[in-house]
Amino acid sequence: MKAFVSIIMGSTSDLPIMEEAVKFFQEMEIEYEVQALSAHRTPELVMDFAKKAKKRGVQVIIAGAGGAAHLPGVIAAFTSIPVIGVPIKSSNSIDGWDSLLSILQMPSGIPVATVALNGAKNAAILATQMMAIHNKQLYSRLSDFKESMKAKVIEANHSIQKQ
Amino acid sequence: MKAFVSIIMGSTSDLPIMEEAVKFFQEMEIEYEVQALSAHRTPELVMDFAKKAKKRGVQVIIAGAGGAAHLPGVIAAFTSIPVIGVPIKSSNSIDGWDSLLSILQMPSGIPVATVALNGAKNAAILATQMMAIHNKQLYSRLSDFKESMKAKVIEANHSIQKQ
Amino acid sequence: MKAFVSIIMGSTSDLPIMEEAVKFFQEMEIEYEVQALSAHRTPELVMDFAKKAKKRGVQVIIAGAGGAAHLPGVIAAFTSIPVIGVPIKSSNSIDGWDSLLSILQMPSGIPVATVALNGAKNAAILATQMMAIHNKQLYSRLSDFKESMKAKVIEANHSIQKQ
Amino acid sequence: MKAFVSIIMGSTSDLPIMEEAVKFFQEMEIEYEVQALSAHRTPELVMDFAKKAKKRGVQVIIAGAGGAAHLPGVIAAFTSIPVIGVPIKSSNSIDGWDSLLSILQMPSGIPVATVALNGAKNAAILATQMMAIHNKQLYSRLSDFKESMKAKVIEANHSIQKQ
Amino acid sequence: MKAFVSIIMGSTSDLPIMEEAVKFFQEMEIEYEVQALSAHRTPELVMDFAKKAKKRGVQVIIAGAGGAAHLPGVIAAFTSIPVIGVPIKSSNSIDGWDSLLSILQMPSGIPVATVALNGAKNAAILATQMMAIHNKQLYSRLSDFKESMKAKVIEANHSIQKQ
Amino acid sequence: MKAFVSIIMGSTSDLPIMEEAVKFFQEMEIEYEVQALSAHRTPELVMDFAKKAKKRGVQVIIAGAGGAAHLPGVIAAFTSIPVIGVPIKSSNSIDGWDSLLSILQMPSGIPVATVALNGAKNAAILATQMMAIHNKQLYSRLSDFKESMKAKVIEANHSIQKQ
Amino acid sequence: MKAFVSIIMGSTSDLPIMEEAVKFFQEMEIEYEVQALSAHRTPELVMDFAKKAKKRGVQVIIAGAGGAAHLPGVIAAFTSIPVIGVPIKSSNSIDGWDSLLSILQMPSGIPVATVALNGAKNAAILATQMMAIHNKQLYSRLSDFKESMKAKVIEANHSIQKQ
Amino acid sequence: MKAFVSIIMGSTSDLPIMEEAVKFFQEMEIEYEVQALSAHRTPELVMDFAKKAKKRGVQVIIAGAGGAAHLPGVIAAFTSIPVIGVPIKSSNSIDGWDSLLSILQMPSGIPVATVALNGAKNAAILATQMMAIHNKQLYSRLSDFKESMKAKVIEANHSIQKQ
Repeated sequence: MKAFVSIIMGSTSDLPIMEEAVKFFQEMEIEYEVQALSAHRTPELVMDFAKKAKKRGVQVIIAGAGGAAHLPGVIAAFTSIPVIGVPIKSSNSIDGWDSLLSILQMPSGIPVATVALNGAKNAAILATQMMAIHNKQLYSRLSDFKESMKAKVIEANHSIQKQ
Repeated sequence: MKAFVSIIMGSTSDLPIMEEAVKFFQEMEIEYEVQALSAHRTPELVMDFAKKAKKRGVQVIIAGAGGAAHLPGVIAAFTSIPVIGVPIKSSNSIDGWDSLLSILQMPSGIPVATVALNGAKNAAILATQMMAIHNKQLYSRLSDFKESMKAKVIEANHSIQKQ
Repeated sequence: MKAFVSIIMGSTSDLPIMEEAVKFFQEMEIEYEVQALSAHRTPELVMDFAKKAKKRGVQVIIAGAGGAAHLPGVIAAFTSIPVIGVPIKSSNSIDGWDSLLSILQMPSGIPVATVALNGAKNAAILATQMMAIHNKQLYSRLSDFKESMKAKVIEANHSIQKQ
Repeated sequence: MKAFVSIIMGSTSDLPIMEEAVKFFQEMEIEYEVQALSAHRTPELVMDFAKKAKKRGVQVIIAGAGGAAHLPGVIAAFTSIPVIGVPIKSSNSIDGWDSLLSILQMPSGIPVATVALNGAKNAAILATQMMAIHNKQLYSRLSDFKESMKAKVIEANHSIQKQ
Repeated sequence: MKAFVSIIMGSTSDLPIMEEAVKFFQEMEIEYEVQALSAHRTPELVMDFAKKAKKRGVQVIIAGAGGAAHLPGVIAAFTSIPVIGVPIKSSNSIDGWDSLLSILQMPSGIPVATVALNGAKNAAILATQMMAIHNKQLYSRLSDFKESMKAKVIEANHSIQKQ
Repeated sequence: MKAFVSIIMGSTSDLPIMEEAVKFFQEMEIEYEVQALSAHRTPELVMDFAKKAKKRGVQVIIAGAGGAAHLPGVIAAFTSIPVIGVPIKSSNSIDGWDSLLSILQMPSGIPVATVALNGAKNAAILATQMMAIHNKQLYSRLSDFKESMKAKVIEANHSIQKQ
Repeated sequence: MKAFVSIIMGSTSDLPIMEEAVKFFQEMEIEYEVQALSAHRTPELVMDFAKKAKKRGVQVIIAGAGGAAHLPGVIAAFTSIPVIGVPIKSSNSIDGWDSLLSILQMPSGIPVATVALNGAKNAAILATQMMAIHNKQLYSRLSDFKESMKAKVIEANHSIQKQ
Repeated sequence: MKAFVSIIMGSTSDLPIMEEAVKFFQEMEIEYEVQALSAHRTPELVMDFAKKAKKRGVQVIIAGAGGAAHLPGVIAAFTSIPVIGVPIKSSNSIDGWDSLLSILQMPSGIPVATVALNGAKNAAILATQMMAIHNKQLYSRLSDFKESMKAKVIEANHSIQKQ
């Protein structure tokens, strides 16, 4: 039962943010793909991607976008695969509020699982948690990851107290 | 050179707001059509509508929606007809901010002409102004409308001063 | 491969909102449980719940809360099961902003899948999408649900045009 | 049927933002003029400009302003030519909210077609869409522009995947 | 040295709010006039009013408006009489933010003295303070008013403590 | 009839902003004084200042402050001289919102004439407008200032068109 | 070591909110006093109250106010007794933001312990926690209160599950 | 009666902000301890810390955190020692609003004494005020501190006037 995630972003300018998700999947040895497609400039490619994702074996879709960020919602309209939305604070964004609300406030019937502003790493962890529902090995890796975070906090705390 | 506008809204619950646009077109004797289609529940119908609008003679599209209001932007992705977006303060909206920002903050390349929250009447006036660019008769009716607004303000002002 | 979801809310006053999730699971014939436990008043019960959930077969946790809504984040701290957060606009809330930001803006490492304000139904659909990753029957029910939403929109649209 | 647009801004400090509109009209070979006039410092010049615009052949007015941005609304009060408002995030602006709301929230009867914060390019595209309602050649150029945007996204997407 | 204030509002619907100013002037026996003129629907009447105010003996102008509230700023553009702006939370206002920011955030050179949302009474007190700069009798009445407010608070405080 | 204004600010760190007011009074040849006193650190000095201002011949008080900006309101509590409040965006301010609302939203009975964020120059112009109510010479200088602003805009506009 | 708290509010209209604090002190059998004094209408009484509080044996001050809520900060300027501020959402408040920020964002050196909007009960609990630092009996009552809250949540949770 | 405060922060990246509290305690010669523990990454250590604090002699807890800042509230859930929350504007924070509301808007029964954004120094002063309720020596040091602040303001004010 192989895990497979598709990462998509509205513009190549979102790549520095979204690469946090890529890194997590590489560390976790989870298969992924990355695309930059726009809900407004290439709507048919987005639709096509969303419709074929299930058959291609995609288990979770992570979609990042800034401004009036329609990409996650538009994808969710065409598939029942869970879609995780990453609001991105882009250059002409109004402090990220536009992206955040455009992704989060989806109408009844078409959810998007929204994470924090620029929270691509959390999107990747959340995707892994979803795929781990029926994948013990993945769940175990997530538990290990949780332990390693704890260990780092404890170590950092010790170093503060030595100052 | 007949004027023809298409009014579309994300949900039938938006009808009480959007009817202000209908009334204006009736008063101005401008041909219009009304539909309630959802960018998220009926995305293919929306896409189909947007793609065929130009050939069907639609000159301006008015799209109203609440919450994560993607409808105007999704339509604008598929046509070069001007799209006017009406942000609607729906029941679970966050004071209308979600709808307003989802419509207004479109990325470079795909504009939506946004009007005030619940501003369906202004959307209709704006659509008429657009169609009047090459239609003297329409421009003349708009000038008359402007004069009639002025007359009403002056009359109301007089009645205040008599109190 | 039976689906099993746990719904938890910060206060019994959140029940009218969270019942939308219950209804969805009943319609979808998905097993669920409901609890009202407070991250601040009964922190040990919440911790205990979170720690034992995986072993009890819980596949997804839906947590709704208002104000400084720590419940979803606190649960996510103790488990790697995906946690869906439902921000609730409670009586002394500041228009829901407090709940929304307290749930959404989780730090790196501990995601909460946030849905729209009062969006309990979408939380339930999202939970089902997660469980459907490895459950064809569930995925099929979600596809049917999507079709039925579409059909309702089309019907409502027809009735508008007959007016 | 020649196209002619008038670009106006509240201050010469808005020029770097508004030049995006100029560039678009140059690329599209659309005639334009540029002015910097203040609704508050030169109100009579603004009024004079607005009143004479129709007779001078202006088809669309694009007005950019920051802070308490009254310029687009004041122009719209004096003409029935469509006015596109560009909110500008100027130095003492409160994150652009002041400009955005001063332009967008026009009262019933006097619409301003508002675009995104600093969205001068989208204002130019929108103006072209308006003028293209009765101008096939312009519509055709807009369709070409849409295709070229799509091509750029596809190319950028390919280059990402080669990395 | 007679005091004379002009009260102006954007719409007769603002009258219930603005009447608080009227009442204060009646109590203080200060001469006033009231008008409802729109910066957008009757721009020339507003300009005419502003230009002639000084010669007509108007000492302070109080202007109340909701939404994209341009009225105080537009008046201030045509006169050097101090203009007090009253932001009004009207029906389609976004919680009053639009009106507040449209009035307050005036560009350098053209101030508007802004008071609290719906603060027409404070506008009247402020106008009286301005006129009292060179009017000892008015200043004395304001001091008495201040004393009477104090007395009311003290009395109310006593009644609480008797409960 | 000599004009005399008192400028006060909550901290010496506000001086770079408040100096815009100083410059205006120097240009206008209006007498002024400058102080940095804190409503919270030196409350008795502030109270003393406010109580004695009228007798010392102060005609208008300009008070600038950041954060929870109580200075203008505290001064207004002790005098009936008009108080102009300048909200300042200081280092730990929340984008200026805290200062703006703390100054603007004064309770009924105690107005503060609020100007734009960091708007010290407009505060000075407003103060001059107030003092000019009964001072023709000052009013005349304000009219000249208005004309000079207009001339600068027209000149800048010409230079744009020559480009 | 007797506990003694002083409750003060800006207006008698704040009494329904502040009574939650009164009730808590009655239940806890803690001595308290209640006053309604305005920082702006009765500034000298407030100053007098603040200066004498320590000598009168007041251990904590709870101050509630709405709008530009200066009361807690003004009191804190005159005493080193801990001051708890309760932001109140009053009638012309801008959704409570004005009160919240006016109380919370105090400058360095003069803290106010701020609680949630309308959170008078939490203010009372916090005051009791402060007084319990050196009062074992009070601390014990707080622990009992905590246990009773827990018991109520557990009971309510049981009743939900029986439905 | 020795004073003892515990400072805790959600991440070592909060240290530059929280060190302001450390400095104050050093100046005041008050015993303190510092830890960096995360409510989400090390929840059990936080719980353990909170439960044992009273027995270890901790009199006040200061907890600083950014984003969805649950740390102060989670600690307050496990103890009746007063908890002071310091909202921190961290890198991906939404202008600090997330942290501020997550800390301030605690539900009834579990207060957190919130100070200004990044207000660690005020947290330390507030903690000292709490401990000074029954500690005359501390109260006296706070009064001295208040006097020294006053002296600095007066000195700075003099230096301005000499310019």
